[in-house]
Amino acid sequence: MKNWKEIEQKMQTLDALQHAMNKILYDMETIAPSGAIPKIGKTLETLSGIYYYELVDNGLLALIEAEKEADYLEAISIDAIELDDLSREEKAAGTFFGTTIEWDMMKELKREIQKISKIPADSYRAFQELSIIGHAKWLEAKAANDFAIFAPTLKKIIAYKKQYIEYQGYDQHPYDALLDDYEPGLTVTELDIFFSGLREKIIPFLKKINASEKMQAITDKKIGEGFFLQAKQEEFMVFLAKYIGYDFNRGQLGISAHPFSQSFSNDDARITTRYVEHDIYSSIFSILHEFGHAIYEQNIAEKLTMTPLGSGISMGIHESQSRFYENMIGRSESFWNPIYPAIQAFFPDSFADVCLADFIASINLVEQSFIRVEADELTYPLHIMVRYEIEKKLFSDTLTVEQLPEAWNTLMMEYLGITPANVNEGILQDIHWSQGYFGYFPTYALGSAYSAQFFEAMKREVDVEKDARDGDFTAITSFLARNIHQFGKLKTPKELMIDTTGEAFNPDYYIDYLIEKYSTLFLNK
Amino acid sequence: MKNWKEIEQKMQTLDALQHAMNKILYDMETIAPSGAIPKIGKTLETLSGIYYYELVDNGLLALIEAEKEADYLEAISIDAIELDDLSREEKAAGTFFGTTIEWDMMKELKREIQKISKIPADSYRAFQELSIIGHAKWLEAKAANDFAIFAPTLKKIIAYKKQYIEYQGYDQHPYDALLDDYEPGLTVTELDIFFSGLREKIIPFLKKINASEKMQAITDKKIGEGFFLQAKQEEFMVFLAKYIGYDFNRGQLGISAHPFSQSFSNDDARITTRYVEHDIYSSIFSILHEFGHAIYEQNIAEKLTMTPLGSGISMGIHESQSRFYENMIGRSESFWNPIYPAIQAFFPDSFADVCLADFIASINLVEQSFIRVEADELTYPLHIMVRYEIEKKLFSDTLTVEQLPEAWNTLMMEYLGITPANVNEGILQDIHWSQGYFGYFPTYALGSAYSAQFFEAMKREVDVEKDARDGDFTAITSFLARNIHQFGKLKTPKELMIDTTGEAFNPDYYIDYLIEKYSTLFLNK
Repeated sequence: MKNWKEIEQKMQTLDALQHAMNKILYDMETIAPSGAIPKIGKTLETLSGIYYYELVDNGLLALIEAEKEADYLEAISIDAIELDDLSREEKAAGTFFGTTIEWDMMKELKREIQKISKIPADSYRAFQELSIIGHAKWLEAKAANDFAIFAPTLKKIIAYKKQYIEYQGYDQHPYDALLDDYEPGLTVTELDIFFSGLREKIIPFLKKINASEKMQAITDKKIGEGFFLQAKQEEFMVFLAKYIGYDFNRGQLGISAHPFSQSFSNDDARITTRYVEHDIYSSIFSILHEFGHAIYEQNIAEKLTMTPLGSGISMGIHESQSRFYENMIGRSESFWNPIYPAIQAFFPDSFADVCLADFIASINLVEQSFIRVEADELTYPLHIMVRYEIEKKLFSDTLTVEQLPEAWNTLMMEYLGITPANVNEGILQDIHWSQGYFGYFPTYALGSAYSAQFFEAMKREVDVEKDARDGDFTAITSFLARNIHQFGKLKTPKELMIDTTGEAFNPDYYIDYLIEKYSTLFLNK
Repeated sequence: MKNWKEIEQKMQTLDALQHAMNKILYDMETIAPSGAIPKIGKTLETLSGIYYYELVDNGLLALIEAEKEADYLEAISIDAIELDDLSREEKAAGTFFGTTIEWDMMKELKREIQKISKIPADSYRAFQELSIIGHAKWLEAKAANDFAIFAPTLKKIIAYKKQYIEYQGYDQHPYDALLDDYEPGLTVTELDIFFSGLREKIIPFLKKINASEKMQAITDKKIGEGFFLQAKQEEFMVFLAKYIGYDFNRGQLGISAHPFSQSFSNDDARITTRYVEHDIYSSIFSILHEFGHAIYEQNIAEKLTMTPLGSGISMGIHESQSRFYENMIGRSESFWNPIYPAIQAFFPDSFADVCLADFIASINLVEQSFIRVEADELTYPLHIMVRYEIEKKLFSDTLTVEQLPEAWNTLMMEYLGITPANVNEGILQDIHWSQGYFGYFPTYALGSAYSAQFFEAMKREVDVEKDARDGDFTAITSFLARNIHQFGKLKTPKELMIDTTGEAFNPDYYIDYLIEKYSTLFLNK
């Protein structure tokens, strides 16, 4: 372990630089004045250059490669172990999954170094600035409802990403190189199977739901319409976030154009939302969604936070947590049962005369709609498929930026049967591409599918319905903390799935969950 | 100029690291959750270590020392000159004050390197964390109104500052080493003369004002009392900040325990305030004060921003700008004349029945009060003297931390004739010491004195009263931008004073200003 002290210091440096860049980004997306953004881009470019240098060019890899695993296994003391659910044998051996945390940190660092070192430093730096300009251009285009404002910058971003794919290499599909950044090992081959399985089951089922008289009746009642003053919404959202268990002492609720969560340590995991004054459901479900991300980060073990293992393992697992709280919990009757009077009291004009059952039906209404983040659970994966098919084509050179709005509309028609009236409710709605997040969207659907399987495993141990009805989320959250959150990046998504549910990932849980849930809501008598 | 490219890159690195640390601090003081602070302290410690390394130990000084001034003077092109008010000869020569901007940047860097390199790296880093803990402890102590909570950390901060003084060295008084950080070259000898001159004139004049029947009559009217809902105040402050000319596209208004301003570039100069619901004057004058700081930073020349010369030259000059807008402008009849109906409409309960003259008298009421930031202009320097005398004693080892509350009360009695009822309105009121800002306070009084002299010079060119009455601050602000703001650190305080006013600093302007203003308000018939 001769280099460990030095490696640890370099780890701290990398974490501090990442904290700095993330804080500047967080600030930029929440409160920074728009005129400041070009210069913030320059600063981020410089910081990313320092980060690149410290990661790739300042001797870290050599330090790591000179270390021997055996020395770590020998030196590790039982005291160093703080994680909860290790086997007795692992505890005695001072190891995790056959290794030590320190060794795992070095493995993760090595993976990161090898990935980033394939990108030339100048190109890496330049992209940081480009992504800031991308974000600004996207905001500008949205404000003008005009894709042409965003298109030239988007082209540059895609060009960089294509180069990035070449740097990283791939076995089968160029898009695989991008998928790997968000869900390590995920491929087009796997996703094609996953999505076609979903489509096959969901599209016909969706037709049945569309024909449901019960659903039509609820739709006609127009529940949830009204005017919801932002200040009043803000007050309700603080109540809701606290109720589900968000610790404001280690978190914060901000406002941004697109809801997101960002953590700087396990003691500082923040969420944002946006307020739409004619739509209370928008902020309710984005709060619950982002809470799921934040609680994951807040529960990461103390020993891992601010290290290379100190955040969620993959976007798929992250989305499984956010979509669990948003949907499995947040759209259930048992969750709202105790607090429905609260929302009625906050917004009497819209809810005083609505019974709980109708409210629950209204937050689960199935509708072929335009905006992904406001979509119901059943059509949600179809929104993801639109993006997935487009991204796949973009990176196999069968689609150009000019063709994007057209391609979007075609796929929306194919999967959802509707055509957006303008680009704001079409191609411009998501922030992701403006920051170069290609390959990210599929993890939303994958995460939803993971969450259905986790949910089944949880129900074998926890009386979720009773606990939610009692307003007690301790056992629910602690199940996730114990099995998933605390490990940060120590366990792979596959390990988390097997260790938590006893079996490998199986999308049938998701399909069954959707069909059962919506049949109960709208098809059964 | 063989090293200039490399030096420039290192300058960018230093600026980006400073931006990062300042943004993390800004976030911490405005929105960060309290539980996050200890880990933020660790991150700042690490970042300050990187900054120290880049500034001191990464070869920058050697690069600078290998450069020759003559090469810069020769190579500089006219195109590079963007600043406004250079002499024709200077423009032709492509020089500023006999040198080039590039050369001045290197001089400033060299000064900074020489100063910081005297502090051992570990000590420098450790202090960054200590100042975060200091801030947290100060907040905790304030919440409990208990100095004992803050005292142990304050001792550590003072111990560091004493070491810092030894590292830096001094000629006459140890406190000089601290003063120099905020106002280069300022000494105890000069300040003793400045303050005793002030005391000699102000204390007897204050007695006259206290005896003024006119003032007593206004005091008895209790103008400005009432309840001012925070949301309503926030709305009014945005109006006020826009009215005086704050560009929200390149700035932002936040909330913090202690009002401050922070800039990240000339396109991002932010201000904060705090809202006291029984005191509207508190936020009005802190907004106008912080605006003065922010407009200074916003007007710094494009060529200087994000470089070692890209911020205000000294705290004294900075305070001259903030106190100019707060007092010379913000407490004048001509400023409020056009917008008095606005504040009456915003807060009719408190102002509808008050005439403008009484309102103006009320914002200039002289009162021996406890809180510095809410003090009138006349007693304000006495508040500063309390802090100055205490700091001087602390650093000549004639006062201990335990004796602080006692010493505070004694000086308050001596200068202001009152004794605080508790530590929150005494020793705990200011944020400065918690972050190690010893030597800062005197610049507030010095800045007030500077501003009186600048004001006189401005009035020779600009009809300030007419412009304010017309709500047109263009000529006023442009005078300051042209003579002071744009130069950043290019000119010393002494140069700014002579070039702007035609003579060296003379505190008589300040004394005359105060005596004339308050005589007119409260002594003349």
